[in-house]
Amino acid sequence: MSDTASRPIGVFDSGIGGLTVVAEIIRQLPHEEIVYFGDTARLPYGPKSPETVTQFAIEDTEFLLSRGVKMVVVACNTASSVAIDTLSSKYDLPVVGVIRPGALAAVSSTLDGRIGVIGTEGTIASHAYRREIAKLDRDAEVLEQSCPLFVPLAEEGWNDREVTLVIAHEYLTPLRDAGVDVVVLGCTHYPILKGTVGKVFGPGVRLIDSAEETAREVAERLASHGLAREPGGTLEHRFYVSDVPHRFKEQAERFLGGALPFVEVVSIDEIGGAI
Amino acid sequence: MSDTASRPIGVFDSGIGGLTVVAEIIRQLPHEEIVYFGDTARLPYGPKSPETVTQFAIEDTEFLLSRGVKMVVVACNTASSVAIDTLSSKYDLPVVGVIRPGALAAVSSTLDGRIGVIGTEGTIASHAYRREIAKLDRDAEVLEQSCPLFVPLAEEGWNDREVTLVIAHEYLTPLRDAGVDVVVLGCTHYPILKGTVGKVFGPGVRLIDSAEETAREVAERLASHGLAREPGGTLEHRFYVSDVPHRFKEQAERFLGGALPFVEVVSIDEIGGAI
Repeated sequence: MSDTASRPIGVFDSGIGGLTVVAEIIRQLPHEEIVYFGDTARLPYGPKSPETVTQFAIEDTEFLLSRGVKMVVVACNTASSVAIDTLSSKYDLPVVGVIRPGALAAVSSTLDGRIGVIGTEGTIASHAYRREIAKLDRDAEVLEQSCPLFVPLAEEGWNDREVTLVIAHEYLTPLRDAGVDVVVLGCTHYPILKGTVGKVFGPGVRLIDSAEETAREVAERLASHGLAREPGGTLEHRFYVSDVPHRFKEQAERFLGGALPFVEVVSIDEIGGAI
Repeated sequence: MSDTASRPIGVFDSGIGGLTVVAEIIRQLPHEEIVYFGDTARLPYGPKSPETVTQFAIEDTEFLLSRGVKMVVVACNTASSVAIDTLSSKYDLPVVGVIRPGALAAVSSTLDGRIGVIGTEGTIASHAYRREIAKLDRDAEVLEQSCPLFVPLAEEGWNDREVTLVIAHEYLTPLRDAGVDVVVLGCTHYPILKGTVGKVFGPGVRLIDSAEETAREVAERLASHGLAREPGGTLEHRFYVSDVPHRFKEQAERFLGGALPFVEVVSIDEIGGAI
């Protein structure tokens, strides 16, 4: 195993949503070590300008590089849609975003070419998935729906409540009635609500979990670059945030699906920004 | 009328919630002119450190001063709880926050001394209302409850939906069962949901609308300082934001209860910060 292959995978997001991607990487690649950075002091990225988000993405990447990572996973829809090209050309290591893997899986799964995409208002208004899907299949029809209450419902931990199902019906019935056969969960928070979303669409509609697809892409890129870590040795995942919001630990552990072994707060100044 | 009295009242918030305070000022003081600043590029203030929020509050105030205001209303719970003293001592004009007026009204309204306070997780965790109420009445019992989904529900415009009532019951039943006779709506978004909250508590519980109480305090302070504007002349309210989020106009008009006559985007650099 090369020295580089033994290094950790770096993952960043504007907050805790990216931990669903981490959970999937750990599940699919149990021999890999993770360094996570959640830019909780500067979230949300969604409403900010592409220039600002790109600058933040560079600073987040620099922080991960300072921790010796071999790959950077942009586990944030907003940063993936505006900053992937900049990061890929600026840094000499593989950079994986969350949008392309989800778009690829949607195009290869749909039978009728009618694809639903759900996400935050920012993601939906950016049409990032629609654009990426169009690059892969010009004939695919993409129906987009924002679900603004899903993030706060996931953060509240109300994934199994009746009220969440009522809200999901409200948002998703138009997509279901439009006859999509594939739906992309286009937000890193949404895997938490996958069960509820599945109840609305029923078994005939395939849900694309972008966390799962991103982890699959990470595995492929590691393999193709000869960067997969060999089994053995002690793994120590590390989690950094730029601020500790209320109920951070409880929420983070729900998103990660397990205990947080190590969390350190780094100041925004340290990662290069100034607020 | 002094030259100063003819000047506008400045109001700032981290976003659009403060528009419920503006709506109340316009209702109670129809001869006053408003300059509003919503720091939408840097919201939310809730999770940020007191030092950062104080710095933002100073910058927001400086921006309003540059527009010639005679008074500053801090229509933001977080900034009110950490920055009122700094602003009051730094600037030679009246500064009014949203917490003290709500606390005063609660203490003077309660018969049993059992006061409920509802707000965002940030406001509730800060115990800002509890502290302010304790200063006014050491014996009052304060029961606090955070309602994290209320802000997104108000922003979504779902104030009259059945699902909102179900969620309100979930959050508020413990307070109702504890026998509070007064409840402070401790978030500038909550006046939008007042009807729903009232349904849960029933007619025996008085709801304190901190927007209403703040507007009342504004009226008193203007009168005591000889700063009330005389009727007559043309009024032109002005609204500034540091970023235009998705659906801004629709949401802002719901919060304001009317059409937005003038909105201008000012860059964060212009108001003194750097993100």
